[in-house]
Amino acid sequence: MKKKNAEEMVLEIKDKSELMVDLAYSSILYDNKTIAKEVYELENFIDALYHNLQKDTLEEVKKGKLSVDDALTLMKLAQAGEQIADAAQEIADVELRDVELHPIIKMSIRESDVVFTKVQVESKSILCGKTLGQLKLASETGMLVIAMRHKDRWLYGPNKKTRINSGDILFAKGPEDGEKHLINLATGKTNEI
Amino acid sequence: MKKKNAEEMVLEIKDKSELMVDLAYSSILYDNKTIAKEVYELENFIDALYHNLQKDTLEEVKKGKLSVDDALTLMKLAQAGEQIADAAQEIADVELRDVELHPIIKMSIRESDVVFTKVQVESKSILCGKTLGQLKLASETGMLVIAMRHKDRWLYGPNKKTRINSGDILFAKGPEDGEKHLINLATGKTNEI
Repeated sequence: MKKKNAEEMVLEIKDKSELMVDLAYSSILYDNKTIAKEVYELENFIDALYHNLQKDTLEEVKKGKLSVDDALTLMKLAQAGEQIADAAQEIADVELRDVELHPIIKMSIRESDVVFTKVQVESKSILCGKTLGQLKLASETGMLVIAMRHKDRWLYGPNKKTRINSGDILFAKGPEDGEKHLINLATGKTNEI
Repeated sequence: MKKKNAEEMVLEIKDKSELMVDLAYSSILYDNKTIAKEVYELENFIDALYHNLQKDTLEEVKKGKLSVDDALTLMKLAQAGEQIADAAQEIADVELRDVELHPIIKMSIRESDVVFTKVQVESKSILCGKTLGQLKLASETGMLVIAMRHKDRWLYGPNKKTRINSGDILFAKGPEDGEKHLINLATGKTNEI
């Protein structure tokens, strides 16, 4: 695997930390400890990445390949991402505490501008057999798939090449109108993407 | 104004802190100190809200209106939001540091799964005179408007009732396909939402 440069690492910390926050809220809403545990895994991954980034940045500064100002910017951005990842872990902790969550608290998370949803893809759905890239779900419905379960296998932060199959369970977030659209597509009530 | 209850405060901290992160990245990408300063304003707001939440939660526990478990959950969720708001401030700091940002660093933020965009609405655009609620921009294009400038007035985290006018500058985030669609709509290249 090609060694990642500092900018790529910062980007990865940014994207992963934001995914972690979404996964953590989803885990609470759907009382899903598997997702909550994944947030813990990702936090370890972010910690390692952050360590590598700091080391590489210092080495590049030493070699004169990176200015002090640029190094400071990269470190500050990475640190912010690391802090967001920590916050995500705090949220996942709520799910892992094994305390029944009050319905009003769940409702209050759910009533955000951006809602979380979970839907199973039925065999008659137009989504079956297509990749997220082909479907352009995010731009056509506003719904971003943050995780999915295919049989016993989980996939977190799927990409354009990820294929949706009948029976898959999608965890997504987006605007309320988008939620209805995604549910109708997944259940086969509409074929219009 | 109706006094907010603890759940509503937690929801507000959640939504505002996530908006702050988006605003902070936008401020860096578009070298916009006005937006970066707004992140600072919002951080003060979040701090006050967090303080009120803690106080109210403790009082409700004392009165027996809230269980210790529920109070702990609310406090943990609010704390995570507060931590995300702090991280957003760190990101905004990068913009306010008055150091020219390296293009590669900007590009790396921009190349995320979710892109940030900025576009001015032209007079021939179908968006003119309509509210965000009417347009359903978020579900139809995947693009979430996080801030807009109307003449000299700024609006952060617009809602469904926010009306778009000719000349407004929209700051939005969403998938890459959605960006093209939004730009085409704002510049009048297409009328199909």
